[in-house]
Amino acid sequence: MSLGEFDLIAKYFTRPVRRAALGIGDDCALLAPAPGMQLAVSSDMLVEGRHFLSTVAPDRLGHKALAVNLSDLAACGAQPLAFTLALALPRADERFLEGFARGLFALADAHAIELAGGDTTQGPLAICITVMGELPAGGALLRSGARPGDDLWISGAPGDARLALEVFRGTASLDARAFEAVRAAMERPQPRIALGLALRGVATSAIDVSDGLLGDLAHILRRSGVGAVVEVDAVPRSAVLAAQPPALQRECTLAGGDDYELLFTTPAARAEQVRAAGRAAQTAVTRIGRIEAGPGLRLVDRDGRAVADSFGSFDHFRS
Amino acid sequence: MSLGEFDLIAKYFTRPVRRAALGIGDDCALLAPAPGMQLAVSSDMLVEGRHFLSTVAPDRLGHKALAVNLSDLAACGAQPLAFTLALALPRADERFLEGFARGLFALADAHAIELAGGDTTQGPLAICITVMGELPAGGALLRSGARPGDDLWISGAPGDARLALEVFRGTASLDARAFEAVRAAMERPQPRIALGLALRGVATSAIDVSDGLLGDLAHILRRSGVGAVVEVDAVPRSAVLAAQPPALQRECTLAGGDDYELLFTTPAARAEQVRAAGRAAQTAVTRIGRIEAGPGLRLVDRDGRAVADSFGSFDHFRS
Repeated sequence: MSLGEFDLIAKYFTRPVRRAALGIGDDCALLAPAPGMQLAVSSDMLVEGRHFLSTVAPDRLGHKALAVNLSDLAACGAQPLAFTLALALPRADERFLEGFARGLFALADAHAIELAGGDTTQGPLAICITVMGELPAGGALLRSGARPGDDLWISGAPGDARLALEVFRGTASLDARAFEAVRAAMERPQPRIALGLALRGVATSAIDVSDGLLGDLAHILRRSGVGAVVEVDAVPRSAVLAAQPPALQRECTLAGGDDYELLFTTPAARAEQVRAAGRAAQTAVTRIGRIEAGPGLRLVDRDGRAVADSFGSFDHFRS
Repeated sequence: MSLGEFDLIAKYFTRPVRRAALGIGDDCALLAPAPGMQLAVSSDMLVEGRHFLSTVAPDRLGHKALAVNLSDLAACGAQPLAFTLALALPRADERFLEGFARGLFALADAHAIELAGGDTTQGPLAICITVMGELPAGGALLRSGARPGDDLWISGAPGDARLALEVFRGTASLDARAFEAVRAAMERPQPRIALGLALRGVATSAIDVSDGLLGDLAHILRRSGVGAVVEVDAVPRSAVLAAQPPALQRECTLAGGDDYELLFTTPAARAEQVRAAGRAAQTAVTRIGRIEAGPGLRLVDRDGRAVADSFGSFDHFRS
């Protein structure tokens, strides 16, 4: 096969441009946020063996590469606008590119956003996506806004992606149907864009859970200068995860990572607004704790007894 | 060494935020172009062995990773605003990070832009930068605006980066001083931001030369639906390159790549404006040809005789 780089870009990544003033094919993409709106920008790099396994289907990888970036926009309450893609590939593999592009654009279409530019090169498989969204100036959901007395909420049911990883690692086993369910959670995460939008003006802080619930909560606590108590048994989990040993359930829900659920805080008086936001976004929302003035993170069980925090947060460089 | 990812980001990449509404440390960076301005966005990925050699000093790599992205903004006539960095590293190597950050921020400071967000992960060395700039709505220099009769211009003196590569490959040899000069061209390219800004409203089309002068000219010709004649001996070259065999000179200037000079077209009547733009930007500009209505690219020598075009454009996937 001798498809050149420009042919490849044309074949798999050229699509009609709608919202961007100028899309792929020039030196830059051009974007104009609406008057009074700010642009929210986020970049993530995915590399094989670290963020995905070599066993992943190309369409799921295309989905996930965009999903994890959209999740950052969701955590800010931004409306997605466009994205750029930089792709390093060992070789021009058409089967891979066809599947990757299919998964990527299916999710892009679901959010009415477009690929506005990018770069393709030869190298070890690496995918870098930069997403751009817009939100009202001053309206972003930040990590720094949590206040003592706020409720702590989580969307969806975290932990399944970690359970799938444990099956791949051979430390847990599931029947085929259960495995497919948790594998889909790992490989096809759903960015909580609609919920992020519905939480504008409701949440005081938000973050998306990519490194594990407790690890990401620690970012909110540090940036907000507060502490928290988390009722570990209140964290929702899927039926598949709920059938696992209790220690594994806690490990997966609290320290799993790769969940892409929204963890957010709101004043206690807004509980009904939060539930309405969840209904509007068709996304489950569950209260799992409370922000406290004193520093630190306390874990308690359903009876209020202290639970030891032995859950390390995911860190790409810590061994 | 056991510096964690967040410590590394804090140590080497956290800097005071000026222009961006919100910088590193939240899910997204927030940017607001001035009223009436569009945002220009470009992403590039650099991987070892393909875009840089393992022998490059980390500070030069930091410089180059940002420079090649800024060059895309220059080619659109955009004023740089901010950038994001996604970095995959085999290990948390402080010596590398210190040098990389130093070279990166020296160039960022020279253009008064800031790192607004990013991502650090473990993996084969890969660097993905997305730059954002602003320009007046409708004022971008595009590849599609060249018209028959326009003059064709090049900034600077292309070819030195390719000559340095030939020395590394062992197919050319230079004395130490000459080698250092061309190596600096390869490793520390200067994005032509000032020239791009000065060419707003003057140039009808522009592109930055990353894949070789003729290869990048072909993009302008295709997007503009025109042809061109290039006087190959008119292309300026450095004193070091001018001392090489004529065939190597042409190979380097016409098909070299990695030059990051601006190739642009202007109506013939604007030659004095182009020279004034060059003076304002303190950048040499040289007329090297003309746009023609008929398709195709013709090369001629100083006597107007046809020169065979045997110069392949750089393509990351074509063997």
